[in-house]
Amino acid sequence: MIKAGIIGASGYAGQELMRLLVQHPECEIEVITSKTYKNKPFNQIYGNFMGITAKSCEEFDMAHIAKEVDVLFIALPHGIASKQLTDEILKDTKVIDLGADYRLKSQETYEEWYGVRHGSPQLLEQAVYGLCELNRHEIKKSNLIGNPGCYTTCSILTLAPLVKEKMIDPNSIIIDAKSGVSGAGRALHLGTHFTECNETIKAYKIAAHRHTPEIEEALSFHEQEVTLSFTPHLVPMNRGILITAYAGLLKGYTYEEIKAVYEQYYSKEKFVRLLPEGVFPETKWVKGSNYCDINFQIDERTGRIVLLGAIDNLVKGAAGQAIQNMNIVFGLAEDTGINMIPAFPI
Amino acid sequence: MIKAGIIGASGYAGQELMRLLVQHPECEIEVITSKTYKNKPFNQIYGNFMGITAKSCEEFDMAHIAKEVDVLFIALPHGIASKQLTDEILKDTKVIDLGADYRLKSQETYEEWYGVRHGSPQLLEQAVYGLCELNRHEIKKSNLIGNPGCYTTCSILTLAPLVKEKMIDPNSIIIDAKSGVSGAGRALHLGTHFTECNETIKAYKIAAHRHTPEIEEALSFHEQEVTLSFTPHLVPMNRGILITAYAGLLKGYTYEEIKAVYEQYYSKEKFVRLLPEGVFPETKWVKGSNYCDINFQIDERTGRIVLLGAIDNLVKGAAGQAIQNMNIVFGLAEDTGINMIPAFPI
Amino acid sequence: MIKAGIIGASGYAGQELMRLLVQHPECEIEVITSKTYKNKPFNQIYGNFMGITAKSCEEFDMAHIAKEVDVLFIALPHGIASKQLTDEILKDTKVIDLGADYRLKSQETYEEWYGVRHGSPQLLEQAVYGLCELNRHEIKKSNLIGNPGCYTTCSILTLAPLVKEKMIDPNSIIIDAKSGVSGAGRALHLGTHFTECNETIKAYKIAAHRHTPEIEEALSFHEQEVTLSFTPHLVPMNRGILITAYAGLLKGYTYEEIKAVYEQYYSKEKFVRLLPEGVFPETKWVKGSNYCDINFQIDERTGRIVLLGAIDNLVKGAAGQAIQNMNIVFGLAEDTGINMIPAFPI
Amino acid sequence: MIKAGIIGASGYAGQELMRLLVQHPECEIEVITSKTYKNKPFNQIYGNFMGITAKSCEEFDMAHIAKEVDVLFIALPHGIASKQLTDEILKDTKVIDLGADYRLKSQETYEEWYGVRHGSPQLLEQAVYGLCELNRHEIKKSNLIGNPGCYTTCSILTLAPLVKEKMIDPNSIIIDAKSGVSGAGRALHLGTHFTECNETIKAYKIAAHRHTPEIEEALSFHEQEVTLSFTPHLVPMNRGILITAYAGLLKGYTYEEIKAVYEQYYSKEKFVRLLPEGVFPETKWVKGSNYCDINFQIDERTGRIVLLGAIDNLVKGAAGQAIQNMNIVFGLAEDTGINMIPAFPI
Repeated sequence: MIKAGIIGASGYAGQELMRLLVQHPECEIEVITSKTYKNKPFNQIYGNFMGITAKSCEEFDMAHIAKEVDVLFIALPHGIASKQLTDEILKDTKVIDLGADYRLKSQETYEEWYGVRHGSPQLLEQAVYGLCELNRHEIKKSNLIGNPGCYTTCSILTLAPLVKEKMIDPNSIIIDAKSGVSGAGRALHLGTHFTECNETIKAYKIAAHRHTPEIEEALSFHEQEVTLSFTPHLVPMNRGILITAYAGLLKGYTYEEIKAVYEQYYSKEKFVRLLPEGVFPETKWVKGSNYCDINFQIDERTGRIVLLGAIDNLVKGAAGQAIQNMNIVFGLAEDTGINMIPAFPI
Repeated sequence: MIKAGIIGASGYAGQELMRLLVQHPECEIEVITSKTYKNKPFNQIYGNFMGITAKSCEEFDMAHIAKEVDVLFIALPHGIASKQLTDEILKDTKVIDLGADYRLKSQETYEEWYGVRHGSPQLLEQAVYGLCELNRHEIKKSNLIGNPGCYTTCSILTLAPLVKEKMIDPNSIIIDAKSGVSGAGRALHLGTHFTECNETIKAYKIAAHRHTPEIEEALSFHEQEVTLSFTPHLVPMNRGILITAYAGLLKGYTYEEIKAVYEQYYSKEKFVRLLPEGVFPETKWVKGSNYCDINFQIDERTGRIVLLGAIDNLVKGAAGQAIQNMNIVFGLAEDTGINMIPAFPI
Repeated sequence: MIKAGIIGASGYAGQELMRLLVQHPECEIEVITSKTYKNKPFNQIYGNFMGITAKSCEEFDMAHIAKEVDVLFIALPHGIASKQLTDEILKDTKVIDLGADYRLKSQETYEEWYGVRHGSPQLLEQAVYGLCELNRHEIKKSNLIGNPGCYTTCSILTLAPLVKEKMIDPNSIIIDAKSGVSGAGRALHLGTHFTECNETIKAYKIAAHRHTPEIEEALSFHEQEVTLSFTPHLVPMNRGILITAYAGLLKGYTYEEIKAVYEQYYSKEKFVRLLPEGVFPETKWVKGSNYCDINFQIDERTGRIVLLGAIDNLVKGAAGQAIQNMNIVFGLAEDTGINMIPAFPI
Repeated sequence: MIKAGIIGASGYAGQELMRLLVQHPECEIEVITSKTYKNKPFNQIYGNFMGITAKSCEEFDMAHIAKEVDVLFIALPHGIASKQLTDEILKDTKVIDLGADYRLKSQETYEEWYGVRHGSPQLLEQAVYGLCELNRHEIKKSNLIGNPGCYTTCSILTLAPLVKEKMIDPNSIIIDAKSGVSGAGRALHLGTHFTECNETIKAYKIAAHRHTPEIEEALSFHEQEVTLSFTPHLVPMNRGILITAYAGLLKGYTYEEIKAVYEQYYSKEKFVRLLPEGVFPETKWVKGSNYCDINFQIDERTGRIVLLGAIDNLVKGAAGQAIQNMNIVFGLAEDTGINMIPAFPI
C-alpha cells in the first residue's frame, strides 16, 4: 500500500482527494493537515465523511510528514508550497502539488502573473507538468509534479493536437471558459455567496487570469510561443468546466483530417472521450469522473474551427488527475481508483 | 458472476442501476430493455455512458429474459410489471421490482390508491417488502422483492424505531417531505420544465400521494394500524430527499432514551448514520451514496419530537437499495458495489 | 411627497426597500445609511442601481436623521434599533422597524428568544404589529410599527382566520416552512456559500427559531395562548417562502365552510389571493410582488387540514409590507407603489 | 389609450408582454390569443396573473383582430406571421413582430437560415428592424417592425459603435453568448427538462444559430459585409443573456478613445448603461429591466478587445423592447411603462 499525506485537506480539492483516496485500493491515507481546522475531525468539516473516517486534521509540518509518507499531495493556495518544499523533502517522498507553484517552467512568468516571489526556483527544473496524457513519460520518472489547473487541463487537452500538428493558427486562439462555483473554493467571498452568484453569469479576471500563461506554455510546441485570449466565466452550478475555443483553421482541413489527428492522440486514452460527430461536450456527462470529453465543429463561413472540451473541475481538473499522476509514478494501472462512471442526474 | 437484466433501463432509476451494476464486482449486465429507446445504444440515451458500454436497449420480453438472467430488475411505471410477471418467471429468476406493484400487502389498498387493477394478486403473498434494514431475513429467502419507494424508504427508516417501541403517538405522525426533481423521472411535463420548477417550491398531491399507504403499512407494527399525514414537496435540485416528521412524544422520553433506541436499531447498520446531537441531516451529505442520515430534536414546549431523515432518492431510494437487496438474496456482503462515499460539492 | 430615510440600506431588505421607494410615486428618499459601506455610492454596493441613483450611504445618526424625514425605515439586525430609538425621535418622525425589536408585545419573551436586553421596553406598548391585513386600524394611528418577519407574515395570514374562528385545534398546529436563501441576508456564512447550500435542503433552528413566539403571539386570539411547532428549511433558490401548516380540524368542517371563512377575511384584501379549489400556492407565482397566496386541503383520513401560504420574503415579507404600512400611516391607497404583478419566469 | 392585441400570448415572451402592458399607463390590452390554450383564462395558464386579469385567450384571426386594435404584437414561432400578415392588416393596425419573419432584409438569407419560405416577401422592404437605439427614426415612421432577437439585441448594441467607427477588424469578431433557459421557451423538450439542464452547461447550434445572420446584417455598416462566429450556450438559470465578444483592435486604440466612442453613441440612451472601468456586466444587475449593460477590456498581450454585454432576454431581448418600439411609434416617452429598476436578488 502506498502511504499518502494530504496537506490542505480541508479545501474542496483536498476533500475530493480524500474521498477518492479513501476508496483507492492501493493507497492509504496516513496524515491530513489543515491550517483552518487544526485538530478537528474531518467528518465535522465535511459531513459526507460521517461514518467513513475518524481522522482529524493535523498541524502542517511538511518535512516531518514527508518522512512518513510515500507521496505527499499539496493542496494549498499558491506561494506557500514553494516556500516549504526542499530537496531534502523530495528525497523522502514524492510530491504532487495541486497548487500553482510548480506548473510553470519560468520563474519570471510565475512571479509576473502571481505577484509573489517563488520560494524554491531551484526546484523548477526538475518539476514535471503533470498533464498525464501529454507528459506521462516524464511524470513516471519524477518526484515533483505540478498538477495542472482545472481550466488548463481542459484547454490543453482540447487544443494540443491541433496546435502541435500545426493545423490551426496559434495566434488566433481564443478560449472562452465556463466554470462551476466549486472552482472558487470554500473560502467565503461576496461573489460566491449563494444569492450573489445564483441565477446569474459573469466573466471575471478578463485578460488577466493566471491559468493563461500555463496554457500558453503547454501549447508552445516546436519552440513556437503561443499567445492567446482566455476569459473565464462563473456559472451557477456546483461543478464542471466547459471550454469553447476558437481558432483559424489552416489549409482548409476537413472534418476527417482533424478527426484523424484527434484519434491519433487520444484513441487509446482511457480518460479522453472523442465524441461522435455532432455530439458536443456538456459538463453533466463527465460529472464525478476523470473524463475529458472533446469535440469540434468546423465553421466554413468564417474559416474557423470551434473546439469544445468538458471536465469535472474537481476530478480531472484537480484530485482525479493528481491520483492519475500518483498511479503513473508508482507504476499502477493509470485508472486505478479513478475509473468512476460519471453520475447523472446529480 | 451474477447475471442481471434491467427492464426499463432508460428511466432515471434504470440508468442509476446501470451505473452501479456496471461497477459492481460480482455482477454483470446481460440485457437491458427500453420501450422508448428500443435498439438504441445506451450511451446515446445517456451521454455519461460514452466509452463505458456499447450495449443497446432490447425489446421487452420478460419471460424470455428471465431465462437468461439470475436476477431481473424491473424499473417500470406501476401497473405494468404485475401484468407480466408469473409464477413461471419466478422459477427462472429472482425479481426485484423498483416499481410499486409488489410493495403493498393489500391488493385492495393498491387498487384504491393506484386506480388500476393489480395484474397478479396471487403473487402478493410471496412478495417481500425490500426495506433491507427491517426485512433482511425475509428478503434473503425471497424470489420476489418489492423495492421500496424513495419517500417511503426515508420515512420508514426514520420513524420505525419510535413507532415500534411505542414511544410516539402513532396517530399524531405528520411527514413533510421534500424531494429533488429527479424523483419525477425523465418524462416531460410542464411541472418539471426547467423554468417552471427552478427557483420555486411547491407541495403536490396533498393528502393523496401514493407513498402514504406504503409508509402506513410498514409502520403498522403489533397489528396497530397507523394513519398519518404525508405531504411531498418539489425542491429545485436534482437529487435528494429530506423528510421532516412530527409526532407527539409519549411519556416525556428523554434525549438519551430515544438515542438509545436508535442505537439499538441502527448502530450496526452500515447504511444508516445516526448523526451526533445537534447535527441534522442535509441531502448534500448523502448524495451519490446509499446512506440514510437520521437525527431528531425534542421540542419540550410542544411535547413533540421532530425527526429528520435524508437519502439520495436514486440510490438508497431506488437503485442502491435494489442492489442491496440483490446482495442479500445472493449472499454477498450487503454493501458490495454500493459503498460509495457521498460526493461533495456536486 | 413623503420624505423617507432608510437605516441599514445595504442589506437585502434595505436594498429592496430602496428599489421600491425609488419607484414609489408619493415618496422620495432623503437619506440612506450603512455601517459597512459608509460614504460608498449605493450603486457600487448594488449594481442594479447603476444609472438609477447617485446617492451614497451616510453615517448612522438616528436622532439627526429623524428630524429630516417623515418616515424612518430601520433595517438592522435585532437589538440595535431598540437601543437608539427614543420618545423624542418618535415625535420627529414615524418609525417602521423591519427588525425584530418592536414585534413582540412581551419584553420577557423578546429577551428570552433573542438573548439580549431590550433597549427601550417603555416603547413596546405604543408599538403596533404591522401585519397590515389584521391590524390596519391600529397601524393608521401609530408612529412606531414593528414590521413582521417573513416567515411570520406568511404563517399568520394563512392561519389566522381558522384560529380566530376556532375551527382548528390551536394546540395541534405545526408549521413546516421553506425559505429561499435571501432570507439569510447578505452577510457571509459557510451555510450560504453557493456550493454549500446549492443542490441541497436542510432544516435549521429546529424548535428554536425566533419567529416562533411572534407567530404564537399573533395567533393568540380571545386571550387563548397558542403553542405551536415551527421548523424552517433552507431551499436552494433566491427568493420566496412557502409554509405548509397542519392542524386538527374541529367538528368536521367542510370545504365550503372553511372557504367561506377565508372569503370573509380576505375577499376584499388586495394582497391576499385565495386560490381556486385544487390550485395550491407556489412561490414562483408571487415572486417580485406583495401578494400572499393561500389555499388548503382537508385530509379526511386523518381529520387534519393542510394549509399552504406563499409570499416573496423580501416584498410582502419585508420591504413591500413596510411600504404598505407607510401607505396606511400616511393615508395613501394601500397598494401605492407596491402593486407589481409577479414576474415569471425569473 | 392605445389599444393592443397580443397574438401568441401564452409563450414566455407573450406572457412578459402581457405583464408589462397591463402595467403600462398608456395602453390597454384589447385581445390576446393562444393556439394551445384557446378559451382558457390567462390566469390559469400563468398563476402570477391570478387576481390581475380575467381575460381569456381567443382564437387567432389576425385580420379580424387588426381592426380592433391600434397595435398588434405577434409572438409566434417563425414562419407563421409572414403567412398571415397582409397589406390590408397593416392599414388597420401597427404591427410589432417579436418573431423572426421581418428582421432580415434579405428574403434569401431568411429562407436559407430558417429553412422555410417567407410568406410575404413583398412586405420586407417596408419592415423596419426594431433595435430602438440604432433605428429610432425609421421605427417612428413605420407600421411594421421586426423586433430583434434576444442574442442579437445584446450583441449588436455591444458591438455596433466599434464596428461602425471602424475601430475593430470586422472579420475577426467572435461572439460567445450565454443564455438562461427561458430563451428556449415554454414548449417541452428533453434539453430543457429540469434535471437535464440544471447543473450543467453546453453549447448548441454551433456555427448554425439563426441569430447569426441577423447580427451580421445589422453590423454591416458602410456596405461592408461582416461575417462572424456566434456560439450560444445554455446556462442553468431562468433569465439573462451575457455576450462575450472578441475582436482584433485596430491601430492600437486606447481605453479613452474607445470609451469616448461608446459615450458618443450611448451616453444619452436611457436603456444602455456603460459601466465604469473595471466593472463588467453580469446578468443579475439587469434582471427584470430593459437595460443593456456594456463594458470592454483591452487585452494588450493579444491586441484584442474583449467586449461584454448583458440584458434580460425577456425584457430588452423581447417584450420590453417591443414596448419601447410601441412607445416610439405612438410618440410616447420611450421609457413609458418599462423603466423598472432591475430586481435583486431574484
